[in-house]
Amino acid sequence: MPVSPATTSVGFIGLGIMGAPMAGHIQKAGYKLHVYTRSRAKAAALIEAGATWHDSPASLAAASDAVVTMVGYPSDVEDVYLGKGAVVANARPGSLLIDMTTSSPSLAARIAAEAAKKGCRSLDAPVSGGDVGAREARLSIMAGGDKAAFDEAMPLFACMGKTIVHQGGPGAGQHCKMANQIVIASTIIGVAEGLAYAMKAGLSAEALMASIGSGAAGGFQLNVLGARILKDDFAPGFLVHHFIKDQTIALEEAERMGLKLPGLAQAKHLFEQLAAAGGREMGTQGIYTLFRR
Amino acid sequence: MPVSPATTSVGFIGLGIMGAPMAGHIQKAGYKLHVYTRSRAKAAALIEAGATWHDSPASLAAASDAVVTMVGYPSDVEDVYLGKGAVVANARPGSLLIDMTTSSPSLAARIAAEAAKKGCRSLDAPVSGGDVGAREARLSIMAGGDKAAFDEAMPLFACMGKTIVHQGGPGAGQHCKMANQIVIASTIIGVAEGLAYAMKAGLSAEALMASIGSGAAGGFQLNVLGARILKDDFAPGFLVHHFIKDQTIALEEAERMGLKLPGLAQAKHLFEQLAAAGGREMGTQGIYTLFRR
Repeated sequence: MPVSPATTSVGFIGLGIMGAPMAGHIQKAGYKLHVYTRSRAKAAALIEAGATWHDSPASLAAASDAVVTMVGYPSDVEDVYLGKGAVVANARPGSLLIDMTTSSPSLAARIAAEAAKKGCRSLDAPVSGGDVGAREARLSIMAGGDKAAFDEAMPLFACMGKTIVHQGGPGAGQHCKMANQIVIASTIIGVAEGLAYAMKAGLSAEALMASIGSGAAGGFQLNVLGARILKDDFAPGFLVHHFIKDQTIALEEAERMGLKLPGLAQAKHLFEQLAAAGGREMGTQGIYTLFRR
Repeated sequence: MPVSPATTSVGFIGLGIMGAPMAGHIQKAGYKLHVYTRSRAKAAALIEAGATWHDSPASLAAASDAVVTMVGYPSDVEDVYLGKGAVVANARPGSLLIDMTTSSPSLAARIAAEAAKKGCRSLDAPVSGGDVGAREARLSIMAGGDKAAFDEAMPLFACMGKTIVHQGGPGAGQHCKMANQIVIASTIIGVAEGLAYAMKAGLSAEALMASIGSGAAGGFQLNVLGARILKDDFAPGFLVHHFIKDQTIALEEAERMGLKLPGLAQAKHLFEQLAAAGGREMGTQGIYTLFRR
């Protein structure tokens, strides 16, 4: 049976720039909300609106029928789900465990196996659409795991996203997100190099975009991030150091599958150069600063 | 004064897959057409419709008020314009010389200088949009050269294209096209790698595109060429060996300007591998065959 506010209490772990508005949408839909995050201050607005604070993932899990997590790194996901006093060991039998962090497909499969041993169902359901998508409940949600569990979780996903697709078994949601990041990695390199070339050649930004913005080069990376580059706007958007995290996961998985991805490997190398040069907190379009002269 | 069918005879050199339909549009607009191309057979339909055949660029140039060229490589452009018995030496004083080949910005500047010595005006005006764009007169035309000459040539461009933009002085049209090709080069690498990863991970092509096709990875390369990849369709489109030509020009120009473009350099290397493996006549999306396992 699909979850519903009448029968389902939801625990939400990780109230950062993405998690806080996502949890807020679930609360507004009428679910009884339980929250835990590293800095309690970030939970203040949700608590004021009626959410119950917990001092640990264990306590939160014991009080929830569904647990949603949106944390930082795969190591955080592993701690929250599989560490001592963590979610899987303390979850109610039958509960739904939904990790929406962009994380490792292999780890997602391990969590699914451990959850099953406790009679729980887990889903990996990373998102794209950024903080704006999170605030406007317009995320693209790519889910992996049991199809029945996905159908059950759908009302929660519908609070947070617009494009919600079941990609396959455990880890498939993460694999889909990785495919997205692999496409983006080389694309933003191409956009940055093309614009660096054009500016160096003395073209006008406006004439350039009029000619190439709607043809074979066109797309989100050129039309949205390229336009920011041409205004010298390198604010995030999507943070360089988060992008490096995703590229690292994707390269590890590719290697595990015996795939060589030279474009991704070079992109990661270039983004690491950018980070080392002080660009960690830039948006990904900041890669342009590496090429311009 | 803008060119018009009443006062302007047009010579067209290079009647390949792009040039033939482009010349046809000019002829249909009512211009007296003169033609020359390496294989006379390719001119048959235009001659039947009233075009005058010439046995050399020199003879064609002497009979034309405006000369349009759409040939293969920069070396062909150089031969046609600056070689012995070529266009510049034989052009009518005051005539408009318009090269629409994708070619070298530096060569375009040299032709402009030589043309000026003979009292002629030259434009570099490469296009994007491919054979379909050429047939449907929907090309994007990126022009460099004197603005007055561009305005004069506009009625001819309007026969062949939809998006027609003056990019700046001599070579600026070619620079704009190079910027476009630089963006595309890394983007198709990202698309091919992302799809190779997704297929290896066992995702469904349909679910994948539903999740990532309209987000930050979306654009012509993923949505049009990626969709062909997922159907194992590697037909051109845009030929691998033409793409390598463009990448070679762009890298030479970048080096001349002191710009390092590692994404483009690696893309060229990968496309050369593809060509060596028998992929010269594939469409650019054929690069996927290098990554899939």
